[in-house]
Amino acid sequence: MHVKGKNYRAIRADKKNKSVRIINQLKIPFEFEIIEINSYSELVNAIKDMRLRGAPLIGVAGAYAVWLACVEAIDNKNPQKFLKDAFKNIITARPTAVNLKFATCYIYNKVLIEKNFSNWENVAYKFANEYYEKEIDSFRKIGEYGLEIIKQIAKKKKGKVVNILTHCNAGWLACGDYGTATSPIYLAHKKGIKVHVWIDETRPRFQGAKLTAWEMYNEKVPFTVITDNTGGHIMQQGLVDIVIVGADRVAANGDVANKIGTYLKALAAFDNNVPFYVALPVSTIDFELKKGVGNITIEKRKADEIILIDGVNNKSKIRKINVMPTNYKTDNYAFDVTPFRLITGLISEKGVIKANTKDISKLK
Amino acid sequence: MHVKGKNYRAIRADKKNKSVRIINQLKIPFEFEIIEINSYSELVNAIKDMRLRGAPLIGVAGAYAVWLACVEAIDNKNPQKFLKDAFKNIITARPTAVNLKFATCYIYNKVLIEKNFSNWENVAYKFANEYYEKEIDSFRKIGEYGLEIIKQIAKKKKGKVVNILTHCNAGWLACGDYGTATSPIYLAHKKGIKVHVWIDETRPRFQGAKLTAWEMYNEKVPFTVITDNTGGHIMQQGLVDIVIVGADRVAANGDVANKIGTYLKALAAFDNNVPFYVALPVSTIDFELKKGVGNITIEKRKADEIILIDGVNNKSKIRKINVMPTNYKTDNYAFDVTPFRLITGLISEKGVIKANTKDISKLK
Repeated sequence: MHVKGKNYRAIRADKKNKSVRIINQLKIPFEFEIIEINSYSELVNAIKDMRLRGAPLIGVAGAYAVWLACVEAIDNKNPQKFLKDAFKNIITARPTAVNLKFATCYIYNKVLIEKNFSNWENVAYKFANEYYEKEIDSFRKIGEYGLEIIKQIAKKKKGKVVNILTHCNAGWLACGDYGTATSPIYLAHKKGIKVHVWIDETRPRFQGAKLTAWEMYNEKVPFTVITDNTGGHIMQQGLVDIVIVGADRVAANGDVANKIGTYLKALAAFDNNVPFYVALPVSTIDFELKKGVGNITIEKRKADEIILIDGVNNKSKIRKINVMPTNYKTDNYAFDVTPFRLITGLISEKGVIKANTKDISKLK
Repeated sequence: MHVKGKNYRAIRADKKNKSVRIINQLKIPFEFEIIEINSYSELVNAIKDMRLRGAPLIGVAGAYAVWLACVEAIDNKNPQKFLKDAFKNIITARPTAVNLKFATCYIYNKVLIEKNFSNWENVAYKFANEYYEKEIDSFRKIGEYGLEIIKQIAKKKKGKVVNILTHCNAGWLACGDYGTATSPIYLAHKKGIKVHVWIDETRPRFQGAKLTAWEMYNEKVPFTVITDNTGGHIMQQGLVDIVIVGADRVAANGDVANKIGTYLKALAAFDNNVPFYVALPVSTIDFELKKGVGNITIEKRKADEIILIDGVNNKSKIRKINVMPTNYKTDNYAFDVTPFRLITGLISEKGVIKANTKDISKLK
């Protein structure tokens, strides 16, 4: 997608330099910085400190991290042990997203079949790239299926602006390209359908205000940033036609783990008869997990994400401030689980389905 | 209530100096500043820029503002016109709270009966003080009625900690003393009932993180600050026993206008069978307003409240930063309306009642 008119992806592997280039999401929207990463552990750190984030992108990063580990393993005394340790470190970089587990295991298993260490690197690169391209193709297809839903609403509204609410960033920054929740929006905008996006700022890290808004700004899609408290009110006032969010992990019954606060928006949508859709590649579905509510480990992140806020001062310099005393106790749950009963449908690359066990099992 | 062990009220009139002293809520929790105010227009400005906030406290400030206007009127060529203009300016300082309208009209009407200008000041002072003391007595009674509800929960939990969630600041800072939503909490804590308070940080202005947490800290009540996105998740996990919030305006049918985001928490409480109570003095009820949803003017405040955040840097200096570019469009709705059907009960100084037309009409 576009940054100042130029096309980018959120992550790119450079085979020649044996490195991976990522957009540093911690500096957006204030600075646009590309980081070159040369080791798997550095990539794991980028996942951990959220320079790189978003469930699908973390999956891709996990795949490329296995590749970088293969590059490093060859120079190690015990390549198998090195790769095994690396695998463990990569897979545990973040606990909630199933994509990371899936992609990392997928590449690792492909590598293990190859007995010749010197070939590991090529095998890993090939399958990581394939995985990435397949993911991006999925995001494009999600856009096409989601577009049909937006078209229907536009038709009902007789060409009036379609108001779409989204939470956090399930955009191209989180996916590599297109995004999940944003893919139908970009496509609709491109097709000339009038859309306007309500963007939840998404505390504590402001990924809505900082990332999704930046994406929309660069794609010239009209948007309004609101606090996370606002969605209920504007739905009650009839100012939202559809909610589309992403997912970090979907259980086999259709329960959706996504950024903390998603559940509250789903409740408000349900209470006001606003359709609530979750856009996701099938790789986000954890078919082994029978139900989501109560069964998904919810990552609890550090208190300083709530207390310490970064932005820019009046001289456009990036600065951090504490919004409350650092000795105040905080709890920083990163995700919540939205029960399937509140979800109108799941927009996947294989089509739009209901959030229930029967329909989901068909995607297996 | 206590600040560093010493007793304070959020506003105090000084008859001798013909001034009003307020706590500057914009600097809490970082600095504790008392401002002395000598004119009604300065007090109106303090209401507008939120150095002084909270529906009940705004009511008291309105009453004292009429007093200060009376002090100023006597030196004016046309005291009646001066007072009438002042009255209009005071009553329109904030649009949502009914207390401001009620208290300002009450004092103004008492003054108008008095034909001797030189007596205005004394009349206004007397009734403003009476109004304030009556309000504070109400907050104390709200605490006593609310305490009974907390006691019941503590009994059911066999002495285990009672977890109470609150939104924004309906504390003593917003009321003068005790608070509304906080009054039962302070009383329960004082009586030795184990309580723990989940405090929604309450964007955009962080009144939960900055004011309610500061109050609890000073009263030594255990608390945890959470983002506004978190309440749904912790209710789903069984970590909340009761929600108590304040109100800016209550319609005759029990619909409650309160800080933006209250509605979302009410939905989550309803979905998880968590009792949801609104604590309020009867003066907050607008008996003329048949229903709230769709009928209450929701104040839309400036964008910079969302974009510009103040806190302290690592040298404890108060600093402001922009969390997103200032050219990003934002909408800053200050309140929302929670439908009566989601509310378990209203805790007033006249007892706990159901949020419906029949029960509310009895308070008239």
